[in-house]
Amino acid sequence: MTQAGGKVVIIALDAMGGQRAPDMVIKGANVARERHPELRFLLFGDEERLRPVLDRFSKLGAVSEIRHCETAIGDDEKPSVALRQGRRSSMRLAIEAVRDGDANGIVSAGNTGALMAMARVVLKTLEGIHRPAMASTFPTMHGQTVMLDLGANVDATAENLVEFAVMGEVFARTVLGVIKPTVGLLNVGSEEFKGHKTVRDAAKLLQEVDLPITFHGFIEGDDITAGTVDVVATDGFTGNVALKTAEGTARLYSRFLRAAFKETLLTRIGYMLARRALSGLRDRLDPRRYNGAMFLGLNGVVVKSHGATDMLGFANAIGFAYDMVFQGFNDTVIAELNSWHEQRTETRAAIS
Amino acid sequence: MTQAGGKVVIIALDAMGGQRAPDMVIKGANVARERHPELRFLLFGDEERLRPVLDRFSKLGAVSEIRHCETAIGDDEKPSVALRQGRRSSMRLAIEAVRDGDANGIVSAGNTGALMAMARVVLKTLEGIHRPAMASTFPTMHGQTVMLDLGANVDATAENLVEFAVMGEVFARTVLGVIKPTVGLLNVGSEEFKGHKTVRDAAKLLQEVDLPITFHGFIEGDDITAGTVDVVATDGFTGNVALKTAEGTARLYSRFLRAAFKETLLTRIGYMLARRALSGLRDRLDPRRYNGAMFLGLNGVVVKSHGATDMLGFANAIGFAYDMVFQGFNDTVIAELNSWHEQRTETRAAIS
Repeated sequence: MTQAGGKVVIIALDAMGGQRAPDMVIKGANVARERHPELRFLLFGDEERLRPVLDRFSKLGAVSEIRHCETAIGDDEKPSVALRQGRRSSMRLAIEAVRDGDANGIVSAGNTGALMAMARVVLKTLEGIHRPAMASTFPTMHGQTVMLDLGANVDATAENLVEFAVMGEVFARTVLGVIKPTVGLLNVGSEEFKGHKTVRDAAKLLQEVDLPITFHGFIEGDDITAGTVDVVATDGFTGNVALKTAEGTARLYSRFLRAAFKETLLTRIGYMLARRALSGLRDRLDPRRYNGAMFLGLNGVVVKSHGATDMLGFANAIGFAYDMVFQGFNDTVIAELNSWHEQRTETRAAIS
Repeated sequence: MTQAGGKVVIIALDAMGGQRAPDMVIKGANVARERHPELRFLLFGDEERLRPVLDRFSKLGAVSEIRHCETAIGDDEKPSVALRQGRRSSMRLAIEAVRDGDANGIVSAGNTGALMAMARVVLKTLEGIHRPAMASTFPTMHGQTVMLDLGANVDATAENLVEFAVMGEVFARTVLGVIKPTVGLLNVGSEEFKGHKTVRDAAKLLQEVDLPITFHGFIEGDDITAGTVDVVATDGFTGNVALKTAEGTARLYSRFLRAAFKETLLTRIGYMLARRALSGLRDRLDPRRYNGAMFLGLNGVVVKSHGATDMLGFANAIGFAYDMVFQGFNDTVIAELNSWHEQRTETRAAIS
């Protein structure tokens, strides 16, 4: 692997994860390399399968190194089993490369639960973070929004929600380039008295402290796609249900739309004429474009690409990992949380 | 009001609730009367405003009685304020007509929180039900599904979730006409070990007891629109977020679709040709058709119509109230819950 001068970003890739791996992984890495010449790759997987594919991309080959692994984690493997039996797997060794400083981040399209479990155990949570969170971006009326937690935890305390808000805000600012991101807490109404105690306590914490967070207040489910805020913070149960409900609704709409176009000869002709624009619409809502899910709050950058992704989706996931490393996402989160905890300590000292 | 022979169903209407009230309420009642000749109405509201509208519909006038009320609940009024200050309001008096046996059910398109609070206080919860729930039907790939709780409570115990499941199952069977409805618990994964303790405990309760419920197990957010089950049971926080996320996603899709059709001359022509089918699509996803939200678990039938509804949506809401009365929804729920509690008592007796 050529380590040219200047700042390089080394990403470890679980080359065996994802339905179309390893081809999709290598092709995706090549797309990402074209976008970010600073990228270097460590490819973890079966060398016999990786080598012939990599040999087809000479420029990628020049910035990549294969690290042979005997095993891979299956898609249906329980996280607990993967933890015990997957110590020599491509996923585990790719994560360990981040822990050992060989790589700055890791991307995998493999088993989500296993990746989360292994990343937690190997990398440990970031200073000041009690629970890592899964985050992703969504298309909205105005652009995009980042939402977290999407299911790394099934519940959350008020403090956890504040930590999610901080991580989301730093992500929107450093990675998405939003200058002054607004943060909303997902609730069942926008009034202060709405919702359960946890979400109301989190709102109070976010109002009290002097963080560089523009706290919008409570938002409701339809505010996610309306783009009311740049960051949506919620517990992992609610966030996961919202994410999948949105996916299901888009699928239903698209099914009804196809049926409507098939109704008569005229509608069929109408479809032919509008086809290109409609495929543009598909691209706009396409989960591939938005499919990198970030595991935030760990000592290292971890990005999960969708299991069914193609090379473009995988390249986007690598792009997110690159941005987080390049923009110093984790250092910024630590600094903000330190500032928050100092303020809380000072407040407590002042009170007592 | 003519009380013809045979079974009649008397519905109390809050004639002042809803953005287009009272005209929309009276016109909606007329549509409902055409659909169900057994319907009789008590119209609560300002007689001076109601009388001239009602006079335009002689057949409706023959089966309706106006009960004059001096006040109405505002849309922005807090439930607690409405409870204290709204004792002579059209909403409150319409609910009291159900309590006093003058009507079998009540429909309002007014302030949701006030309606819920007043209905709880005036009607009290049904025998065997600890928490009432808000339910609604949704379009799916295969037809429709009923989901509850949509926000009557911000949390739920495992027992509450079982009660929601029972009410949802009875609704699907008696009102929607599903012969053997399947019930799913909304969760972040379908495996037994997924989710927080409450949802796992509820699943155990539903598996243990011998109710006429076909318990499917856990479902995820995208199963709602996929039509995986006939009944989706969840806590009010998650259900409300899922409902509004689905609404927001449909709105986003529709916005993107309109933009796509405006792109070029060809797409505009395509739109013209497909227009009729696309308006059919709007009807299919139209919230008016699905806009009756039922408050289940009270001593009386209470249906909330959408505040922005037109007469067709309001007629649908009346239709749901009619069906619940006609099919003996509440009696069936009581019988099923009694059977459940007897089984639990027997199981406990057998153990001790």
